[in-house]
Amino acid sequence: MGKNAADLQKFLPSIALFGGLEEPALTQVIEMMKFREFAPGEQVCKQGETGRDMWLVRSGEVVVCRDNASGRRVKMVRLGPGEFFGEMTLVDIQKRSATVIVDKPATLLSLSNRDLFTLYQQSPTTYVLILQNLCRELSRRLRRTNSRLTESVSDDEGTLIRPAVKRTRTLG
Amino acid sequence: MGKNAADLQKFLPSIALFGGLEEPALTQVIEMMKFREFAPGEQVCKQGETGRDMWLVRSGEVVVCRDNASGRRVKMVRLGPGEFFGEMTLVDIQKRSATVIVDKPATLLSLSNRDLFTLYQQSPTTYVLILQNLCRELSRRLRRTNSRLTESVSDDEGTLIRPAVKRTRTLG
Repeated sequence: MGKNAADLQKFLPSIALFGGLEEPALTQVIEMMKFREFAPGEQVCKQGETGRDMWLVRSGEVVVCRDNASGRRVKMVRLGPGEFFGEMTLVDIQKRSATVIVDKPATLLSLSNRDLFTLYQQSPTTYVLILQNLCRELSRRLRRTNSRLTESVSDDEGTLIRPAVKRTRTLG
Repeated sequence: MGKNAADLQKFLPSIALFGGLEEPALTQVIEMMKFREFAPGEQVCKQGETGRDMWLVRSGEVVVCRDNASGRRVKMVRLGPGEFFGEMTLVDIQKRSATVIVDKPATLLSLSNRDLFTLYQQSPTTYVLILQNLCRELSRRLRRTNSRLTESVSDDEGTLIRPAVKRTRTLG
């Protein structure tokens, strides 16, 4: 499956991240996107690395894994067509939080932080829409993860699930 | 502690959510903010309700709790000065994901989704800055929660931690 602009014009509006984008904005985003095919077993990105791209699954399947403190690799979630990953690195400027490995032959589309910055400069309305969609998606993921944590909690009533973190006084 | 504009001009830039805002933008945000004092035991917002406000802790302490499927109330996190909550409802238009109860006498500042919309219309640059900050904060919270889930995983190697969710094809 090549980078087919007509196909993507139909595909992108069905993705949460690009909801609300009109035709010219979609065209601009499609022109920016890089397209790549991956074989099963290939690693798309690696936990701990610096990242500059987010990825959208056009076809195939990938598995998101995390290596925990004891060095064990834990499978977090399986993603298929229409789902995206790697977006956290673009917004919080931290290292990749997970390793992503291709499970079924996959076609992935990528968008870089430079692309997002270009949108910010050239098409602020499009940028704001994508940012709002991204915010909404992160929030929904956080809800699901929090819910999962709450359900798995053991019986030590007083425990706080999220450990207190150093309060952010200044921004990096 | 009343709503003191000079105090807030110093306080807000230290909050992740308002990082990068210049003086006129800060003034505009401060003018929008509502201010309220809470006694210990008071409930600020309730899981499952529709929410229109996010809250910023100016002083005191609150505890964020979730009632899980079996009706047990689980304490998620304790928040103090400079920390905020309730922002998820503003961006993903879903019900409150948690109940927040005041633990130590607290002064809270609130900002509504209407305030954010006014910023979007009147000061898009300020709006984009806040949205970027919010995105970054959600992403960091998601990293911490994911990390916590990965560490707590049991030995059933093949399990996917995040259950597959219905793929979003259209936006609400």
